Amino acid sequence: MVLEIMGYVAGALTTVSFLPQVLKAWKSKSTKDVSLSMFVLFTLGVFLWLVYGISLGDMPIIIANLITLVLALSILVMKLKYG
Amino acid sequence: MVLEIMGYVAGALTTVSFLPQVLKAWKSKSTKDVSLSMFVLFTLGVFLWLVYGISLGDMPIIIANLITLVLALSILVMKLKYG
Repeated sequence: MVLEIMGYVAGALTTVSFLPQVLKAWKSKSTKDVSLSMFVLFTLGVFLWLVYGISLGDMPIIIANLITLVLALSILVMKLKYG
Repeated sequence: MVLEIMGYVAGALTTVSFLPQVLKAWKSKSTKDVSLSMFVLFTLGVFLWLVYGISLGDMPIIIANLITLVLALSILVMKLKYG
C-alpha cells in the first residue's frame, strides 16, 4: 500500500513536471534551447514504458506514462513548430 | 524475458533522451527556454521512482532512474547557472 502510494507520487511528479515546460513553450512560443532529440527519444521511451506497465498490470506506471505521453508529445509538436 | 527486455529498452530511451539536452545546454550555455519548475519536479520524481524500483526489486526501473537522475540533475544545475 505504501509502495503503491510512492509509485503514484513518483508518477505524479515526473508527469506533472512536463506541464510547466508545456506552458512555458506555449506562452513564449520559443523552444530554441529545448532539445529536439530529447523529446523524440523521450516520447518513444514513454510509449514503451506504457506498454511495459500494461504488460505488468502496474497501474502507477500505466497512468503516469499515459499522461506523460500526452505532455511530451505537446512539447515535441511545439518544438517542431517553433524550432 | 521479452517483458524485461522491453523494460530495459524503455528505460534506455527515456534515460538516453536527456543526454542530448545535457549536451545542448552544455555547448550553448543557454537554457532560457528550459523550464526550471520542470527539472525541479522531474528530478524529485525520478528520485522517488528510484526508491520505488529498489522496493520492487525491479532492475529496469532502478538502472533507468539512477542514470536519469544524474542527467536531470546536470540539466537542473546548468539551468540554475545559465538562467
